[in-house]
Amino acid sequence: MHRTKVRIVEDVLDANNTIAQANRDDFDRQGVTVVNLMSAPGAGKTRLLERALDGMAQEGVRVAVLEGDVQGSYDADRLSMLHVPVVQLNTDGGFGGECHLDANMVRSAIPSLPLADIDLLVIENVGNLVCPAEFRVGEDARIMVCSVTEGEDKPLKYPLMFRACELVIVNKIDLLEHLEFDVDRLEANLDAVHPGVERMRVSARTGEGVDAVRDWLVQVPERARAVA
Amino acid sequence: MHRTKVRIVEDVLDANNTIAQANRDDFDRQGVTVVNLMSAPGAGKTRLLERALDGMAQEGVRVAVLEGDVQGSYDADRLSMLHVPVVQLNTDGGFGGECHLDANMVRSAIPSLPLADIDLLVIENVGNLVCPAEFRVGEDARIMVCSVTEGEDKPLKYPLMFRACELVIVNKIDLLEHLEFDVDRLEANLDAVHPGVERMRVSARTGEGVDAVRDWLVQVPERARAVA
Repeated sequence: MHRTKVRIVEDVLDANNTIAQANRDDFDRQGVTVVNLMSAPGAGKTRLLERALDGMAQEGVRVAVLEGDVQGSYDADRLSMLHVPVVQLNTDGGFGGECHLDANMVRSAIPSLPLADIDLLVIENVGNLVCPAEFRVGEDARIMVCSVTEGEDKPLKYPLMFRACELVIVNKIDLLEHLEFDVDRLEANLDAVHPGVERMRVSARTGEGVDAVRDWLVQVPERARAVA
Repeated sequence: MHRTKVRIVEDVLDANNTIAQANRDDFDRQGVTVVNLMSAPGAGKTRLLERALDGMAQEGVRVAVLEGDVQGSYDADRLSMLHVPVVQLNTDGGFGGECHLDANMVRSAIPSLPLADIDLLVIENVGNLVCPAEFRVGEDARIMVCSVTEGEDKPLKYPLMFRACELVIVNKIDLLEHLEFDVDRLEANLDAVHPGVERMRVSARTGEGVDAVRDWLVQVPERARAVA
């Protein structure tokens, strides 16, 4: 019984990986690099994008955003202020909604994306620390945002998420003085599950550390070209 | 293709509901009422339980906790200080882990629970605002905890979760003075998806509002008896 369940899960993930590779081929053909941005609900992904994507054009990088949400277009509406192309992808479908984006959902959005006119696509995933880490969508890099209001134990409780990314952004550091939150302990827990992973301390609200995030995003296409 | 997918999902939820009813029958037979506690990761469920369950014995209510986590027993270890029975349920299994508890997982834990010796079972679900709302586990009541650091838009973005509960606890109100968070706006969004649902403003950190949560929990068995 258990074996059957694991087998079905493996089939689902195999099918997902096949479609993710097709997405990746489409992105590569158009010279677009792709970042998958993940976090718990309310960790500040959208506010961070509002800050970090502002100024990308001056850096010579043309960006678009694919917004994943169960329902609604609240984040897409916020980001439309940046004057970058934003495409909304909703995961609901009669039922309660999917808790993550998968490769097939992203594939369905590709015709709506102006791939020929952009260098970088940021995919803002559904807020969730479990399933988004399991479903590749054709991305070059993955960023996960955790906020200092969530507790230092999160890497230990959601290890796959913290392991499945190239950059961990520790957000809301402007609130540190009002919390009993030990960033060093968070980073030690992070090193326990993903030793040495790149990390940044950021406040999307005050802007502290956002330049480093923007620089990192600007370099994603360069790093991808270097690997290719 | 789409129809097939919806059909499979419905079958999964039907099977889950059947097992949830079996759990419910077992709980009823032993006179145990059950609360399913849900939230995003880091909203403060465990800290709230540390506060609210302390003193339940004096109220004449014998409690146990079933802790749901992808991995580890960090919350169970914290709650063991309360000297109430705590049973850990992990959702990982070779693969990345399930993002929610389902009725079958809870069923597997029933033999470990001292049902004959308790009045109330609190099930702390995996931190996630999507799938836990879709899977009933045999509970009498559902509480969802949202924190004021998560943003006022959460009821609109995760409507099923905010609709699927009898009580919404707005936690971390001690941080309000450091945020641009409008609790009235959150409550208006809440009323848009679940008009008039009972709600409480709480700080699990300072203890503000926790007495009301404890009173609510104490009354769950009474309410359940009144309905029966």
